Parts: sequence; structure tokens; C-alpha cells
Amino acid sequence: MKTEPSRATASVPARDRLLSAAVEAFGELGYASTTTRDIASRAGMSPAAVYVHHAAKEDLLFAISHEGHREALEVLRSASASSTEPLARLHRMVHDFTDWHVRNSRIARVVQYELDALSSEHRADVAEMRHDIVNAVCEVLEAGANDGSMQVTSTRSTALAILSLSIDLVRWYKPGSSASADHLPGLHAALAVRMVAASAAS
Amino acid sequence: MKTEPSRATASVPARDRLLSAAVEAFGELGYASTTTRDIASRAGMSPAAVYVHHAAKEDLLFAISHEGHREALEVLRSASASSTEPLARLHRMVHDFTDWHVRNSRIARVVQYELDALSSEHRADVAEMRHDIVNAVCEVLEAGANDGSMQVTSTRSTALAILSLSIDLVRWYKPGSSASADHLPGLHAALAVRMVAASAAS
Repeated sequence: MKTEPSRATASVPARDRLLSAAVEAFGELGYASTTTRDIASRAGMSPAAVYVHHAAKEDLLFAISHEGHREALEVLRSASASSTEPLARLHRMVHDFTDWHVRNSRIARVVQYELDALSSEHRADVAEMRHDIVNAVCEVLEAGANDGSMQVTSTRSTALAILSLSIDLVRWYKPGSSASADHLPGLHAALAVRMVAASAAS
Repeated sequence: MKTEPSRATASVPARDRLLSAAVEAFGELGYASTTTRDIASRAGMSPAAVYVHHAAKEDLLFAISHEGHREALEVLRSASASSTEPLARLHRMVHDFTDWHVRNSRIARVVQYELDALSSEHRADVAEMRHDIVNAVCEVLEAGANDGSMQVTSTRSTALAILSLSIDLVRWYKPGSSASADHLPGLHAALAVRMVAASAAS
């Protein structure tokens, strides 16, 4: 699930086609109003064929949610490991996290808005990754507070506020708006650094 | 949620009960899965009585969404008028906007997550208020850039990022979590000021 779903084509593996079709249907109709038939027809498959891959539409939502969270977490961790300097690490993390949300805004929107539709077992799986995402930011804020490069009051709430810059763009961002796509990652990264950088005067 | 003064006095309590019941039902079940019967039973009314006040559940969603946006916009405008100093105005705006979202997180969550369920006419009404909300923040950022108290690159994207601090809390905030309720408004206000304040060195 590297890129936003496009119309299903025969050359794409069936599972990928199904996930893309499900993102499209959940995004347009809402999860509750989407039927297995809606997803099947968008994927160019029979409803019976859908069940070969996924027992129910909740399984599709979970697959989308699990992979989306796993990718987003991987983006943050890899950015976090890109430097030893806390402000540089934070800059890269916010840059790449916003970039991921810009490129995957439809997936991210479904994942965020339909979280309550997951079974409790599946929700627990996703909750663990969401916890790890917040912790990845907390860790760099603590490193910055420790070496004096950052001034942080309330680590966890500040981490949540920083993540909000990237995550909340799925509420208003229109996929394909290339001007935003180009400047948002750099802008958000700079804003996040200003939020916590120790002032030059201190 | 405040009631509209123009409504007949006798109908006010019933209408309030209905809106509260609708927020509760939409929040728990999702808009698409909620029936008029669900709302009626939570409000202690018959389904027929619901129709006396609102023709359909979309009317209830619109009433919730319209009043929520109107209140949130009023909070921002009143905070914006509280000072002539741009950084002080921004601090108060973000403080009060976050405070409103903390106190109305269930309403705000329904309003944000179910925007696509509104009719196109109702969505246009709400879109105008959302536009005004972004513009209220743009205006104070422009004032700060003009008098040199702020350094702002990309006014509109920065306004959206600042609003995200308050709006995105409805995604994770649990109503009744009093520790967050107490410190989030002040924290978000301070973070927003740091995002745009002209550095002491310049």
C-alpha cells in the first residue's frame, strides 16, 4: 500500500486491488454504508471472490488500518534514526510524517475516521502502534530536553500536538493539490522545531 | 450547546434533549448506522415526536454542525477582539479554541467526522463558517507579520496548522480527563505563539 489507490487494473494483485477498492468505498460512502458488493464491484471481482481474501469488510478495514499505521510508524522510526541531533531528528520526523499523510491522505482519513468500527481485538492491535507513534516523538523530545537543545513542558501533550500538524491535514487536504504537497512537509517540520527549540537567548 | 433564542420556549427543552441524544447516538454508532428511533429512545421521545422538531436525521446533524461551528467561530472572534497586540490575541484565540474543543469534544468529533453526511446545501453553510474560522487566524497572523511581532511563512497553511492543535484533540481526548482539560489550553496557546513569534535575536 505504497501509493494512493487508483482504479483497479487486471495487472495489480487481487489483494492490492481489494484494499484500494475498500479505501475508495469507505472514503466515499463511509464504512457503515459500504457493502461487500460495493467493494467487489470497484475491484472488478465477485462478492464471493472477496471472501477468498477477507472474511468480512471489517477484515479489510483492519488490513488497511494495520498497514497504514505500520507504514506511518516505520516512516517516523527511520526519520528518527537519521541523525543523532534531537532537533534535526524532529525536523526529519515531522517532515516525513507530513509527507506520508499528504501522499496517503485518503487512506489516512479512512484509518482515522473509522477506528471505532474495528473489532476490539483489532483496535487493540492498532492502539499499540498508535502508542508507539506517540512514544517515538516523546523519545526525541526527551533527548532534546536532556541535551538542552529543546525546552519542553509536558512531553506527551507536546508530542500529540506535533503529530496533530501531520494527522489533521487529512481533514482538509484535497489529494492532488500539488502546491500543498510540496510545501507542507517543510513548513510543518519548521513549525515543530520552533515549538520546542530552546530559545537563542537562554 | 446553546439554544437559539428565536425558538418557541416550550420546545427548547425537547430540542436540547434531541440534539444531545443525536450527538450521543452519532458519536457511538456513527451517523450512517443511527436511526431516528435510536435518537428518539435516547431522548425519551417517540420517533413521531422527533419529526415535529426535525424532518430527518440529516436535519439534526446539520443543527449540531451549524451550532457547533457558530459557537467555535464566536469563541475565536471574541478572543481575537480581546487585545490589540497580535501575539496576545493569538495566545487567547488558541487558548479559548482548545478549551472549547476540550469541553465539546464529543460534539466536535461528530461535527468533524460526519461532515460528508450533510446535504450539499447544508455543507455549503458550514463551509462558509469553516472559511471564517481559518480567516480569523490568518488575520491575526497578518497583523503580527505587519507589526514585526511575528515571522510567518505561508499564512494560510500556518493558520491551518495552528487550528490543528485544537481540532485534532477530538481524535484522542477522552471527555472527563480533567488533567488534560486543565493544561491543554495553556500549552497549545504557548506552542502556537512559539510557532510564529519573531525570534528575540532578530
